[in-house]
Amino acid sequence: MAIKTLKSNYVYQGKILALRIDEVEFPAGMIGKREVVEHPGAVGIIALTEDNEVVLVKQFRQATGDNMWEIPAGKLEPGEDPQGCAIRELKEETGFTARHWQKLTSFYTSPGFANEILHLYFARGLKAGEQNLDPGEYINTSLLPLPQALSWVRRGQICDAKTIIGLLWLNAGGWGE
Amino acid sequence: MAIKTLKSNYVYQGKILALRIDEVEFPAGMIGKREVVEHPGAVGIIALTEDNEVVLVKQFRQATGDNMWEIPAGKLEPGEDPQGCAIRELKEETGFTARHWQKLTSFYTSPGFANEILHLYFARGLKAGEQNLDPGEYINTSLLPLPQALSWVRRGQICDAKTIIGLLWLNAGGWGE
Repeated sequence: MAIKTLKSNYVYQGKILALRIDEVEFPAGMIGKREVVEHPGAVGIIALTEDNEVVLVKQFRQATGDNMWEIPAGKLEPGEDPQGCAIRELKEETGFTARHWQKLTSFYTSPGFANEILHLYFARGLKAGEQNLDPGEYINTSLLPLPQALSWVRRGQICDAKTIIGLLWLNAGGWGE
Repeated sequence: MAIKTLKSNYVYQGKILALRIDEVEFPAGMIGKREVVEHPGAVGIIALTEDNEVVLVKQFRQATGDNMWEIPAGKLEPGEDPQGCAIRELKEETGFTARHWQKLTSFYTSPGFANEILHLYFARGLKAGEQNLDPGEYINTSLLPLPQALSWVRRGQICDAKTIIGLLWLNAGGWGE
C-alpha cells in the first residue's frame, strides 16, 4: 500500500529531536498531512546479576513530570554502533560493565508519530564500578530481584515501554539463548 | 529529585502533536533545556479469538516509512474515556466487537521525549463486523495464531512496542485473570 510523500517541511530541528510535517497523497488521490518526530534512535539494556537481580535506574523525566523506574538507556550518538552505545550507557548510568552481551530485538517506540527505534540488549557477567553521568543527569541505580520487578510490571509501578519489554522478554525465558 | 521548570515555549501546536521547549533548573543550579512532545494519549487492544488467534492490523506508517504489523490502536479524542476509545478503535479498524474487556496496564511509550501514555486492553468474546475507517486510513486486518505472533516477536518481524507488550503479556499467562 503506497502513500506518496509530496513535500516535507521542518518546523523544528533541535538538539535531540526534529519535527517534520509531510504532505502525503493516499492511493485514492486524497491529500493529507502527517506530523513526524525524527529521533536518532536509542538503546536499552536489561542487565542481570548472578543473583537474578535486574539493574534499574530511577530518574525524573521532564516529559512525564515524574520520577520513573527504567532500564538503563540512552540515545545513539551520530554514527555510533548500537552495541557500543549500550556498553557506554550501562557504564555511564550505573557504573556496571558486562562480560556477556546479547542483542534481543529492535522496535519502534511509537510508530504513529515518531521514527525512534530502540535496540534492546541483554547484559550478564556484571562488574560494579563508578557512574559517570552527563551534566544534567541525576540517576539512582537499584538492583531489584527479577520476580519483584515482574510484579511491579504487573501492578503498573513500572510503566515504561522498553523496561516492560525487557522484563517480559526475560520472563518468556530461553528466547535469548 | 526536583527539577524546576523555569519557562516553557511552544514551537509547534498541530493536529495531533505539540512540541514544547522547557528551560529547566537542576538541583545544583545548572540550567538546561528539555524538548517535550505532547500527545493526547492512545489505546491499544490485544484481541483474541476463541481459536487463540490474535487480531493484527497492517498499515503504512509515515514516521517509519514502512508497512508494520500492530495491534489495533488509536488516539484518545479530547475527554474520551480510554475503554470507550478502545471499543471504538477496535470496531473502526477491524470491524470486531468484543463481549469481554479487561484493562491490562498503561505505559509511557518514550518518556525521554514524549508524554504519550498508552492504555492497553485485552478483548475477548469477539464478533466480526464491518470496518469503518477514517479518511486516509488504509488498514488490513489479519488473524494470526498466538504462537505464530509470538514467534514473529522473537524474530523481530513484529517491531512495535505496544504490540510486543500485548503479546508478551498474554504469553506471561494468568496475569490478566
